[in-house]
Amino acid sequence: MNVEIVNTGSELMLGRVLNTHQQWLCRRLADLGHVVTRQVAVADTGTEIQAAVREALSRADLIITTGGLGPTSDDLTRELIAELLGKKLVKNPAVQAHIENFFAKRGRPRPQKTDVETFVPEGAEVFLNATGTAPGLAMEISDPKSEIRNPKWLVMLPGPPRELRPMFDASVVPLLKREFAGEIFVCRTLLTTGIGESRVQEMVEADLQPLVRRGLEIGYCARPGAVDVRLVAGGATAEKLVGEAEVVVQRILGENIFGRDDEELEQVVVKLLAQQKKTLALAESCTGGLIASRITDVPGASEVFLGGVVGYANAAKEKFLGVRSKTLKQHGAVSGAVAQEMALGVREKFGSDFALAVTGIAGPGGGTAEKPVGTVFIALASAAGVEVKVFLNAWDRATFKQVTATQALEWLRRAVSA
Amino acid sequence: MNVEIVNTGSELMLGRVLNTHQQWLCRRLADLGHVVTRQVAVADTGTEIQAAVREALSRADLIITTGGLGPTSDDLTRELIAELLGKKLVKNPAVQAHIENFFAKRGRPRPQKTDVETFVPEGAEVFLNATGTAPGLAMEISDPKSEIRNPKWLVMLPGPPRELRPMFDASVVPLLKREFAGEIFVCRTLLTTGIGESRVQEMVEADLQPLVRRGLEIGYCARPGAVDVRLVAGGATAEKLVGEAEVVVQRILGENIFGRDDEELEQVVVKLLAQQKKTLALAESCTGGLIASRITDVPGASEVFLGGVVGYANAAKEKFLGVRSKTLKQHGAVSGAVAQEMALGVREKFGSDFALAVTGIAGPGGGTAEKPVGTVFIALASAAGVEVKVFLNAWDRATFKQVTATQALEWLRRAVSA
Repeated sequence: MNVEIVNTGSELMLGRVLNTHQQWLCRRLADLGHVVTRQVAVADTGTEIQAAVREALSRADLIITTGGLGPTSDDLTRELIAELLGKKLVKNPAVQAHIENFFAKRGRPRPQKTDVETFVPEGAEVFLNATGTAPGLAMEISDPKSEIRNPKWLVMLPGPPRELRPMFDASVVPLLKREFAGEIFVCRTLLTTGIGESRVQEMVEADLQPLVRRGLEIGYCARPGAVDVRLVAGGATAEKLVGEAEVVVQRILGENIFGRDDEELEQVVVKLLAQQKKTLALAESCTGGLIASRITDVPGASEVFLGGVVGYANAAKEKFLGVRSKTLKQHGAVSGAVAQEMALGVREKFGSDFALAVTGIAGPGGGTAEKPVGTVFIALASAAGVEVKVFLNAWDRATFKQVTATQALEWLRRAVSA
Repeated sequence: MNVEIVNTGSELMLGRVLNTHQQWLCRRLADLGHVVTRQVAVADTGTEIQAAVREALSRADLIITTGGLGPTSDDLTRELIAELLGKKLVKNPAVQAHIENFFAKRGRPRPQKTDVETFVPEGAEVFLNATGTAPGLAMEISDPKSEIRNPKWLVMLPGPPRELRPMFDASVVPLLKREFAGEIFVCRTLLTTGIGESRVQEMVEADLQPLVRRGLEIGYCARPGAVDVRLVAGGATAEKLVGEAEVVVQRILGENIFGRDDEELEQVVVKLLAQQKKTLALAESCTGGLIASRITDVPGASEVFLGGVVGYANAAKEKFLGVRSKTLKQHGAVSGAVAQEMALGVREKFGSDFALAVTGIAGPGGGTAEKPVGTVFIALASAAGVEVKVFLNAWDRATFKQVTATQALEWLRRAVSA
């Protein structure tokens, strides 16, 4: 089965927004056993959209388009696809009622522009939009020249992620289950830290070779501070093959593996802390609240995370964290001594089991010969005392913050696991 | 001029990573006057990559591929494209020296796997990788049937963003300037908050109509809590046309416009605070440090941002922010009264000019009939006193945090501008 995604939107081609649909739809479809073979993004002009959909129809069994269903003048996908397929647009009373109701519930007048959203291509299956106004649409495309029924579906979804995602789960998943039985397909990703991409492959490939001969596919993906090892197989023995491969990789990479599949490091940390009924407090300088924000992205974080202090100014470090002004003067705010006092201070003030502290130079300014941009001290305090590590994360400001947060969380993960 | 991007990587098709290259490259190219006409992502298998590149070559003047240049077994782009174009791979001594040096400087042995990176297609221009090992490659494709020289270039860039981005700026930009003179093209985006997408269009379209007849293109893009209005024009009068359009939109949408183009709300807030020499402190509960993290993403934030407290537990709210236990008991942690005390408390403790406080229910758990998931109280304290607003942001946890942070920062922006 051949699946293609067509993302429409001039804002994509101008680079004004990030295309999050690709990842989200590809992952959901892969989980259902349908690996996307091609994804295409084009501007929302007539020629481009029709050319991309026409080409996709010539290859794929399932085409999903995103965007261009809304009420504004650059929302053209519905009209263009109806024209391409030779379908009339007809008024749909259910959509009309849904949109009336949407605005009535919010006590706002219905903008006349939303009229266009009530017209749908003749014969289309309509997905009412639980979180917006524009409906999704699905059309079976029959090939008049073919004698066997070979289902081919074109599904149109609205552009905003908070409309597209619930609609996919509520309406597209049932359609796929009804029209396309998923093939057996297993994909497992082991998430590692602390070893480079080439070295990871060198360490595992010889031992995985017998499994590759039996049909296992291996992929490697380097990310800042992490390397993903992906194990993929299809067919009846897929689960067994991937399971055996996972055992091999686990044995070789051991504690460098921090999680599996969609797990985030912060989820693993929160889970471990919760299992051991331990609590955490944070003292952040250069990461500016990012570690706290990552921890609180995890539902249930409130069980283990007591809170944190973002001590950007020196005065804040003294007042809230009990860092001594003598230490600040003697060693500077970016120093191992200050990191240690921050960790001890925040642990004591919050009364937590563990405390992490970070202080460093995120850049682009503020570096010196002795402490260049990217220098960062991380301290970890626990009942066992306090330790400090120094790293040089010489990247742009955003990457610096992410990598530093990952190093701190990874250290905490190992300490909690130990 | 026709530009296409081909992103390769099975991890993209499986939805394991987000394709940030599309946005980044599209934006950079648009800024140089080259709007990307199509972006395609395919798995890193021979058939798919060669098919996608062959099709792109049939249409485009410039093709940029990303990924598949690394040292591991799934890095196939270089070999496949050389094969497609009938070019031999030859060892490049400059690349060899660069890679030796890369590992020597880091005191690590060079993995043998990196050998493949030293081979490049015959005749290719080589871009040494300032932040990694795999070189970028550029090849001019001449059409033997054509009599006029019609430059067509194929550029291959490595997959990791921290390698691709500096390489694009250092090596691809000069190539483009040398080979393709950019056309005049102006794109301006006005960033608005507080009005829905349909309403924004209704408000501005009639007044923009005369400019549309003169060649202006308008686009609208809805994002959580924000709508972008994009004004685009080409040719000799582009700057004038877009300038006139901007005046019209500014007049109609006024203070709903918080910024332009690539500006982020947090950048605008930091800039305004710096201009007025005012300082900020934060007390965050349900946003868990996200507001602080967004503020500290801005270089120079340390000038205006004193720090913040992430008070997740009630005890933290009392201890660090001076929230009274009576207030917590009487109104609950998620209440306007607590938000006000948090804002006043953190303003006093940090001695800042402005203080924002947020407390709410991010979900998925913790909602009640009276205070459902998504309820959030935001308080703003300044020399003028303290005010509180309540919002219902009934979205998933991550969107809840982002939207709440945006509402808080937007309120602050208007207060600082006032």
